[in-house]
Amino acid sequence: MRKRTPQRERGTTIPLDKFRDECGVFGVFGHPEAANLTYLGLHALQHRGQESAGIVSFNGRGMNGERRIGQVAEAFDEAVLGRLRGDRAIGHVRYSTAGGSGLANAQPLQISSHRGELAVCHNGNLVNGLEIRDRLEREGSIFGTTADTEVILHLIARSRQALLEDAIVDALREVKGAYSLAFLAADRMIGVRDPMGFRPLSLGKLDGATILTSESCALDLIGAEFERDVMPGEMVVVKADGAHFYSPFEKQRHRQCIFEHVYFSRPDSFVFGRSVGRVRKRLGAELAREAPAEADVVVAVPDSGLFAAQGYSEAAGIPFEFGLVRNHYVGRTFIEPQQSIRNFGVRLKLNPVRAVLEGKRVVLVDDSIVRGTTSRKIVQMVKAAGAVEVHMRISCPPTVGPCYYGVDTPNRGELIAATHSVEEIRKHIGANSLAYLSLQGMLRAMEEDAGGFCTACYTGDYPIPFPEQQATQLGLL
Amino acid sequence: MRKRTPQRERGTTIPLDKFRDECGVFGVFGHPEAANLTYLGLHALQHRGQESAGIVSFNGRGMNGERRIGQVAEAFDEAVLGRLRGDRAIGHVRYSTAGGSGLANAQPLQISSHRGELAVCHNGNLVNGLEIRDRLEREGSIFGTTADTEVILHLIARSRQALLEDAIVDALREVKGAYSLAFLAADRMIGVRDPMGFRPLSLGKLDGATILTSESCALDLIGAEFERDVMPGEMVVVKADGAHFYSPFEKQRHRQCIFEHVYFSRPDSFVFGRSVGRVRKRLGAELAREAPAEADVVVAVPDSGLFAAQGYSEAAGIPFEFGLVRNHYVGRTFIEPQQSIRNFGVRLKLNPVRAVLEGKRVVLVDDSIVRGTTSRKIVQMVKAAGAVEVHMRISCPPTVGPCYYGVDTPNRGELIAATHSVEEIRKHIGANSLAYLSLQGMLRAMEEDAGGFCTACYTGDYPIPFPEQQATQLGLL
Amino acid sequence: MRKRTPQRERGTTIPLDKFRDECGVFGVFGHPEAANLTYLGLHALQHRGQESAGIVSFNGRGMNGERRIGQVAEAFDEAVLGRLRGDRAIGHVRYSTAGGSGLANAQPLQISSHRGELAVCHNGNLVNGLEIRDRLEREGSIFGTTADTEVILHLIARSRQALLEDAIVDALREVKGAYSLAFLAADRMIGVRDPMGFRPLSLGKLDGATILTSESCALDLIGAEFERDVMPGEMVVVKADGAHFYSPFEKQRHRQCIFEHVYFSRPDSFVFGRSVGRVRKRLGAELAREAPAEADVVVAVPDSGLFAAQGYSEAAGIPFEFGLVRNHYVGRTFIEPQQSIRNFGVRLKLNPVRAVLEGKRVVLVDDSIVRGTTSRKIVQMVKAAGAVEVHMRISCPPTVGPCYYGVDTPNRGELIAATHSVEEIRKHIGANSLAYLSLQGMLRAMEEDAGGFCTACYTGDYPIPFPEQQATQLGLL
Amino acid sequence: MRKRTPQRERGTTIPLDKFRDECGVFGVFGHPEAANLTYLGLHALQHRGQESAGIVSFNGRGMNGERRIGQVAEAFDEAVLGRLRGDRAIGHVRYSTAGGSGLANAQPLQISSHRGELAVCHNGNLVNGLEIRDRLEREGSIFGTTADTEVILHLIARSRQALLEDAIVDALREVKGAYSLAFLAADRMIGVRDPMGFRPLSLGKLDGATILTSESCALDLIGAEFERDVMPGEMVVVKADGAHFYSPFEKQRHRQCIFEHVYFSRPDSFVFGRSVGRVRKRLGAELAREAPAEADVVVAVPDSGLFAAQGYSEAAGIPFEFGLVRNHYVGRTFIEPQQSIRNFGVRLKLNPVRAVLEGKRVVLVDDSIVRGTTSRKIVQMVKAAGAVEVHMRISCPPTVGPCYYGVDTPNRGELIAATHSVEEIRKHIGANSLAYLSLQGMLRAMEEDAGGFCTACYTGDYPIPFPEQQATQLGLL
Repeated sequence: MRKRTPQRERGTTIPLDKFRDECGVFGVFGHPEAANLTYLGLHALQHRGQESAGIVSFNGRGMNGERRIGQVAEAFDEAVLGRLRGDRAIGHVRYSTAGGSGLANAQPLQISSHRGELAVCHNGNLVNGLEIRDRLEREGSIFGTTADTEVILHLIARSRQALLEDAIVDALREVKGAYSLAFLAADRMIGVRDPMGFRPLSLGKLDGATILTSESCALDLIGAEFERDVMPGEMVVVKADGAHFYSPFEKQRHRQCIFEHVYFSRPDSFVFGRSVGRVRKRLGAELAREAPAEADVVVAVPDSGLFAAQGYSEAAGIPFEFGLVRNHYVGRTFIEPQQSIRNFGVRLKLNPVRAVLEGKRVVLVDDSIVRGTTSRKIVQMVKAAGAVEVHMRISCPPTVGPCYYGVDTPNRGELIAATHSVEEIRKHIGANSLAYLSLQGMLRAMEEDAGGFCTACYTGDYPIPFPEQQATQLGLL
Repeated sequence: MRKRTPQRERGTTIPLDKFRDECGVFGVFGHPEAANLTYLGLHALQHRGQESAGIVSFNGRGMNGERRIGQVAEAFDEAVLGRLRGDRAIGHVRYSTAGGSGLANAQPLQISSHRGELAVCHNGNLVNGLEIRDRLEREGSIFGTTADTEVILHLIARSRQALLEDAIVDALREVKGAYSLAFLAADRMIGVRDPMGFRPLSLGKLDGATILTSESCALDLIGAEFERDVMPGEMVVVKADGAHFYSPFEKQRHRQCIFEHVYFSRPDSFVFGRSVGRVRKRLGAELAREAPAEADVVVAVPDSGLFAAQGYSEAAGIPFEFGLVRNHYVGRTFIEPQQSIRNFGVRLKLNPVRAVLEGKRVVLVDDSIVRGTTSRKIVQMVKAAGAVEVHMRISCPPTVGPCYYGVDTPNRGELIAATHSVEEIRKHIGANSLAYLSLQGMLRAMEEDAGGFCTACYTGDYPIPFPEQQATQLGLL
Repeated sequence: MRKRTPQRERGTTIPLDKFRDECGVFGVFGHPEAANLTYLGLHALQHRGQESAGIVSFNGRGMNGERRIGQVAEAFDEAVLGRLRGDRAIGHVRYSTAGGSGLANAQPLQISSHRGELAVCHNGNLVNGLEIRDRLEREGSIFGTTADTEVILHLIARSRQALLEDAIVDALREVKGAYSLAFLAADRMIGVRDPMGFRPLSLGKLDGATILTSESCALDLIGAEFERDVMPGEMVVVKADGAHFYSPFEKQRHRQCIFEHVYFSRPDSFVFGRSVGRVRKRLGAELAREAPAEADVVVAVPDSGLFAAQGYSEAAGIPFEFGLVRNHYVGRTFIEPQQSIRNFGVRLKLNPVRAVLEGKRVVLVDDSIVRGTTSRKIVQMVKAAGAVEVHMRISCPPTVGPCYYGVDTPNRGELIAATHSVEEIRKHIGANSLAYLSLQGMLRAMEEDAGGFCTACYTGDYPIPFPEQQATQLGLL
Repeated sequence: MRKRTPQRERGTTIPLDKFRDECGVFGVFGHPEAANLTYLGLHALQHRGQESAGIVSFNGRGMNGERRIGQVAEAFDEAVLGRLRGDRAIGHVRYSTAGGSGLANAQPLQISSHRGELAVCHNGNLVNGLEIRDRLEREGSIFGTTADTEVILHLIARSRQALLEDAIVDALREVKGAYSLAFLAADRMIGVRDPMGFRPLSLGKLDGATILTSESCALDLIGAEFERDVMPGEMVVVKADGAHFYSPFEKQRHRQCIFEHVYFSRPDSFVFGRSVGRVRKRLGAELAREAPAEADVVVAVPDSGLFAAQGYSEAAGIPFEFGLVRNHYVGRTFIEPQQSIRNFGVRLKLNPVRAVLEGKRVVLVDDSIVRGTTSRKIVQMVKAAGAVEVHMRISCPPTVGPCYYGVDTPNRGELIAATHSVEEIRKHIGANSLAYLSLQGMLRAMEEDAGGFCTACYTGDYPIPFPEQQATQLGLL
């Protein structure tokens, strides 16, 4: 879901790093410990959103919801989970955004209407949400949040369809954009992916219960079995008599987010039918073929670059080494000395292993360069630790456009690759050489032609146009 | 506002002590520190609601709201108040209710609609809220809270009137019940009391700013001047060009809540045109005339009985003494030893002064007996501290009916006076004698005929009938 | 106990309001819920110290201690109390001091030595603590706190006496000053008061268990019976076979702190053999005789002046009224608006009742004037609420000297009465007249000749001299 | 420092996992932001102790100390650090121990004596601490903690030496065991390592300031330069005029803890003159030579096994793969569903990457097997993810004895290798093969003969005997 907040509340000078949310959704139907499993599932999806977490369960008579600021393990304790009784529940984690009172837009959204109580979790972002909202407001609707997800709930409440699933289809036919949704009503849980399938959604099984999850790694944690992906445009309706599958939307070319594989999903997940870890290794291998380097060691920027670096090392025949180690005790905020420490922010997270780097020609592998600031600091640190050459290798093409479909990205002006050549970026980050994987190389690694994936952030080819005026207002252009 | 929650979520066995809320509202228009003043105003109204507190301010471009669990002084710190910029703000305190996540219904409610952003605080309770809500839901509306206040917001959004104040009048003409409301829109603050005037609402002035407050004591704290009560059925619209007054509703006989004077309001407030402290003393004096006692000392149950006891003492010519002292360090929860302590809960709050009570015949004055459990413990404690006789005197008539207009009361079955004679109650609490003030005596103390006040909880004469079926569902009957 | 901290850590410009601690002690021997009862006892003694609270219990094998910042009810929860097993425990509350890490000196102090484990709580202040400490340090001792109480523990550990009680006597013969102490060892609890008996200490009984407490009000809360005061110079040793009483010190004239009766103790306590509430009424009555006023009402500054005001009213035949009411929801810190509010700090706590004060000549009764700042604000508020005259009456003599025996007082220079005449003070606070009770009047109220009480803060006659150089260093002179 | 607590407080059934503490120490002398740098240094040493953290600084007049439960980044905020002024400070992190109130033994210990104020941080464990403590107690000393470190402070205070450094030498000549200590006095900081050099301690430089740190990685974070190790038996005295070095103890054969290299220190640190990461890779390489396996992939148990696995892979010519990924969002406590999840605890931390493991013969490399429970779960998980064979390889010899010198280890009975053959362990953990590195192999990896290291936990050859009776009492045998 995208927050409408910034535009309204803070004018046009929005730091776009913050105005969108990548999220994770999870749901359980038919297990006596539905809320507890949802809590664990959300913990496994924590990398998809750390600001707030929420769970709604149905206890046979009514719905109870808890939405909290913070990570799952902090936000939910035994007392809170104890209030979430029932054998069905859905939950949501949400990405960190600026500002204080983040609870207003925390999900699941939970409403009542003539259909009874309904809760929903949304991963994605609508492109025409504002437009529909304006129309609904003119017709007398009131909005309690700034989330585009609330638009969907209004449309469902207004649909003439008797069945909830039909009303949801009615509503979703009006919206455009990216959505993987999990709904919970008294007697059913419904999962649905938009026809292009931007964001992932998978099905699992545990002791007869049905599970919905953004990624399969959440199934592993609770000991559930991975069944299959919910397909783009598919709706699954889970009731006491089992799961029912529908394909209510017109078929469209799939546009699954390739960035899920490059960076966002966990390497132990299966996403869009592929092992994320294996894809990343292949990205590294393609990169080694396209952009070899004369070097002594291949070093990853942990953890994002680990699998690609490993793939590069194998394909290039250059040894892989742990030349940067990650500090596992990184807190929220740090007090920096006034006498500033060079590259302080990066040092808190990473430290070079001098014994590995000293005197070496290093291939440094990462998944992406966004603004270029962090990469520059890492290259400096690696050189300061004794590396004689640093050859930066990026396991995807240059990122030249923002995302409108539910990934939090800076606006175009802040994307270094949108306005600078590769050589300019190389100079900026201070590397001896710099190479990105080509679009073709990336797609080869996916073992798939370009048709099935959204690559808009690398190509500017947006499957669903975002209203230009709106993008300008939001500062995206 | 009344929460619909219990009925839906917890079935029919609701402890009615909790299903209604008495609240306090406060608003400032035209002062650079609007939110800070609102915070202090709410602190002065803290006795009207301790569960949650909320403030919404308008900063010139948009509204910011903060709603928190807990008392005002804990819930709001400098960082939170710092986010509430602007020269206009409204705030709300709400009574303690059961359950955990009390934030869902915390006020001010804050929405956006085609009229822009709107926030509202409500003290009172609608009688036909559920009925309207059911109609609105059938027409496609969705509800994000269980508060009847949300009904008013929907009706406003749907009104065809161009002006906000006209739309509010449209909406309020549809609802029945008790409401003292403070609205905040971008360019105006609006206060309104229902035509019967159940709950109080007053106006004050501070350096050209206009203040709305449930009670005048909040004006004292911030150094503002008391102007006058908002009259029953009156609406005040405060804009940059000053305050405008309207009387848009049909005139009705006033039905101001007499319980505000007996117990609820602070003794240093002026409510319904009277000093609460002075009225309480007069209640005590009337009681002394109606129900004299042969005794050595008059002792109050602090703090509720202090003024009435003082009035009794003066009228009866029996010395007033501090025979019970209050512990000022009462926390939220206490760990009681397993080997239970007699009257533990009461002891935490009150302790008898043996030197005052020993060997004395005591007139013990309190404002009311609800279930009788606490009174019984206090009488026991006073006797254990050496009193030879305890003559209990209550400064109002027996409470025989629940309230439907915004005061939290138990259901009829739990009201000891609804099912027991005065003599039975006397035996139960263990007093040597027991007397209540008569209805006539109470009205004499108000210096007013019965017409102006709601006395339903003493007489069962309800100014606005509460649908019987609904009352039964809610367990009120 | 007195903290040595300020002198060492903050140089000579110590705000003396903070450099001493008034404390409360409590102990239980022989009850299965010793720690729970101690927790409740400390809650009843909360007025004697709000900064930190601590409990140590002996569980049959070892001692467990918990010391916490904050009030008792916040600081101790079920989990914490659950760790404090055993049938014997002692506890301590300590007055608020400046600075952050208040835990370092929190009591009970708990050590081990060749005598095994020992814990101690101290109410009072040693006069030669620094001197002994310096000697002990020169002999190789190390100190972990800055509390003078630690000196006592060192002396006990060094004593050659075989029995703990004899070693304690050895130690206490070396120290001079005020101490009411509760010790806990594995097999005994020991209570002792210094020979002059500056600070109170009482004995109670509950189901065969023996209780030590600073004030009797703590016995009321747990349903225990008051037995008697521990006498000045008396030691009580409580063991499995019962309580044993000793008088190991040379007899001295008693010097019990008269301020305990004037202000410090709770009115429902019996202290030094007298009801505190009754004494306060008598102080008010003496004051009415000594300093009558032509007035319409007697009003107390709550709560400290309540009993004295009542006594004044009765003796003077002028009606007592509640002209100032106290706000019961006072938090720790408040955000004051930048546009400052007149008398803000006082308004947060007290509000005048205009209906009582308007047009009246008011006798305003309080227990003391320290710096004069608060009294001035209260007089202003009472006049602003309509009083035509304010006659201030103080229920003790002018406070002209600081206390060295365990009461937190400002230094002499800050005591308005030390440097100003009564007429000057009257002008400063803006009252129409001002009178203090005379020393003779105060002692009459105690029903006792001057011999039994310490009145140093009113007379400058210090029973135990405080080394002048030290007092100067500490800024007391 | 070792806590004496368990023996005394909890009898003989102590879980030995908890009775000892491994710690980290850090100190800065001569930098205006000494406390801030210490805070960051402790953050970099966080892996050496997560329970509590403390810092003491000297501000020119006195010492201020803050000791807190929790990790450094949580425990210290700007307000707390703001109280720690001055250009010299020492700090300490301490390992998690059982029980609630861990503050009692938190370091730095801070005392005053005739030498003035003194603070100390201790990494290590004394062997004769109890013995000396008993003697000191018999001589009249009192102890405020159960830490053996307090013994050292007593001995220093009792020394007749005029200079602090001489008194410290006096004291340390009496104690036996492991100690790397940092002392802070008003005018000097002193670092010292025991003559055998069990625990590490290094020196660094930053802008003229001298730094003491347990590991060099803390220097990297603050941008300081590594100077050299403090040598076994060496004392460094840092004063305004610079650092002075002494070797006051009789020379002894060095016995540096080999476990620091195997597991405890960070791979980016230089410890005992060697790169920890490089040593670990060599351990893996030796292991590959000694215990080859027919396999398809080498997989590490992250993070402890990463470097060794990499070394194994290179030496064996079998590809290294990330077959297990770590969850970076591991909180303190998790609510486990009642219907228990197989290997739940391990799953929270690690997840297998099925695409890497499926159908493969896996060499699984870890640094040690302690009780065997976790290894068993990991092997199960790897097999469940499709591995056809699992060959477990451990990069050190079987752990057969507890440590008495400052590493927290279970007692002998819980060490699976102390009572089971390698074949029995293999069966227990369910691996297809299991091999440990030999002692000779381990020492070869250190590039050092056995003389310089303590290998007691692998050989039972304890450089300083631990009194047998005491070990038995403590449950170590």
